[in-house]
Amino acid sequence: MTTFLSGIQPSGRPHLGNYFGALRQHVAASRKAGEHFYFIADYHSLTTVSDADELRDSVRDLAATYLAIGLDPERAILFQQSRVPEVCEITWLLSCVTGMGLLERAHSYKDKVARGIKPSVGLFTYPILMSADIIAYDADVVPVGKDQVQHVEMAQDMVTHFNTRYGDVFKRPEYRLAENATMHKVLGLDGEKMSKSYGNDIWMFESGKKLKKRVGQIVTDSRPPEEPKDPDGLFLFDLLALFLEPSELGEWKEKVRVGGEGAPGYGHLKLRLMEAIEEHFTEARARYSELMADPAELDRLLTRGAERARERAVRVRDRAYAACGLR
Amino acid sequence: MTTFLSGIQPSGRPHLGNYFGALRQHVAASRKAGEHFYFIADYHSLTTVSDADELRDSVRDLAATYLAIGLDPERAILFQQSRVPEVCEITWLLSCVTGMGLLERAHSYKDKVARGIKPSVGLFTYPILMSADIIAYDADVVPVGKDQVQHVEMAQDMVTHFNTRYGDVFKRPEYRLAENATMHKVLGLDGEKMSKSYGNDIWMFESGKKLKKRVGQIVTDSRPPEEPKDPDGLFLFDLLALFLEPSELGEWKEKVRVGGEGAPGYGHLKLRLMEAIEEHFTEARARYSELMADPAELDRLLTRGAERARERAVRVRDRAYAACGLR
Repeated sequence: MTTFLSGIQPSGRPHLGNYFGALRQHVAASRKAGEHFYFIADYHSLTTVSDADELRDSVRDLAATYLAIGLDPERAILFQQSRVPEVCEITWLLSCVTGMGLLERAHSYKDKVARGIKPSVGLFTYPILMSADIIAYDADVVPVGKDQVQHVEMAQDMVTHFNTRYGDVFKRPEYRLAENATMHKVLGLDGEKMSKSYGNDIWMFESGKKLKKRVGQIVTDSRPPEEPKDPDGLFLFDLLALFLEPSELGEWKEKVRVGGEGAPGYGHLKLRLMEAIEEHFTEARARYSELMADPAELDRLLTRGAERARERAVRVRDRAYAACGLR
Repeated sequence: MTTFLSGIQPSGRPHLGNYFGALRQHVAASRKAGEHFYFIADYHSLTTVSDADELRDSVRDLAATYLAIGLDPERAILFQQSRVPEVCEITWLLSCVTGMGLLERAHSYKDKVARGIKPSVGLFTYPILMSADIIAYDADVVPVGKDQVQHVEMAQDMVTHFNTRYGDVFKRPEYRLAENATMHKVLGLDGEKMSKSYGNDIWMFESGKKLKKRVGQIVTDSRPPEEPKDPDGLFLFDLLALFLEPSELGEWKEKVRVGGEGAPGYGHLKLRLMEAIEEHFTEARARYSELMADPAELDRLLTRGAERARERAVRVRDRAYAACGLR
């Protein structure tokens, strides 16, 4: 059986970019053959988040969101990264077989330093933690976006270094590039990539007045409705495209292109987007609310997930410790 | 009650330098008031040892040696570092509050790089692991040699960074310079500092023919016995000084200084050294042999030590996880 592993960093409530870029695919993939591990990367969040309540809330929010959009906690193994201490133990083992050069060449570290972020050691070494995340569960395949390929390649390098020294201990993971990669570039209120850190995001389960206000903030221009416009030049349509059937989307685009008296204004299009978002998540939003109202049940599910994840990680850790002489 | 913590890296069978430089002091200190943790730093060994059997043997050897020379496993808490996963978990927390600059300034890293050792990440980050070792047990005092002071200072810095961000979570350790620091420079067969890696060491429990051969390798010169010599220019006397009563030592020195017919040759002095080593460790050598012949008992003692160490480490880890939002 093939073992798949995916992780996502909790950072506030998941937004539409998280949903279309990762969560939705994760849930779809979890229904296919194989064994599926999904971890909520709270250790990784510590490199950027220093507010404890924010992190705690983010973890619960992400777990509830996964379950709300249909992740079956019996089929998939959903768990919080920091509930598996073996990941930190394996991190140390990998540190001892990884050269400084490998980390110094990591894109994400170089980018952060270039952006003037004063680096912590965690920011420098997190590719090792990420490799341990993969290796700890004997993962065969890690579905990734293009910007994550290097991380899996680094994990491959570390496996090779460790196994060269200690024998055939760790499984070598492969990456699989996400399909429909173009679909995943969800744009935010300002037309830039949707991101919590840019403040241009829309929470998946936003609704009512708050959603109306948020959608209202999508940047447009001052051209009047009747003026004919190229709809492909309006990123508002990129957002609409995520929710509308192609036929309906085509009709709206045609009206905008033609202009004149019957053409919809930006406000009109935003109203349609708002309705579509609300409708798309109706069921999931209800399940999300239920889960958030029942912390004990959420705890139970996360505890169960962590137990299943640890079962595997303990086996892998024991194998590695025996190989390098710690046991 | 004051909590003391000491660690020693297992690397082969403990030699006379290990004994006079660390082990003997540890055992003496463990009899004084306070709570005493002694860990066998097997994680740290992974930065230099890649032979699993060698590491396994070294750990057992070091544990048996501690017990043989009188460490009371009920009073002191003797354990193997890698039996306490919380140390690795706390290492990650510290990584996220430690700037790269702190590690780049570490003497031991700079020294190794200067000596042309191709650095692994473990070699770079091990001061964080070492800090976690201290912090995980709420240690108040870490007895150190001068070359270890910086490590405790780094741990202090990390505690400050963590507590500044997350509140009063970790206890700030203090270092205490070992007394009689001059006593600890044990010279090896070639007159350089005794060190396993220089190959100039004498195993504490060496005896009989093997000890005779080893002591025979102590470097001397070709001057005949009758030639008067300055005994303080002979490092053979530094070794003798570790074992002989001052009065006897003085007599030998005087004979060498005077020279002439009654003066002892190097072979004679070496014979006396050999006898003195054998005699000094007679009782400990017997207990060591007993322990090594009873692996189950050694396991039981190490397991019990690890349980007691973990009790503390789990409490500290839980406190830290709650503070930063992982729980």
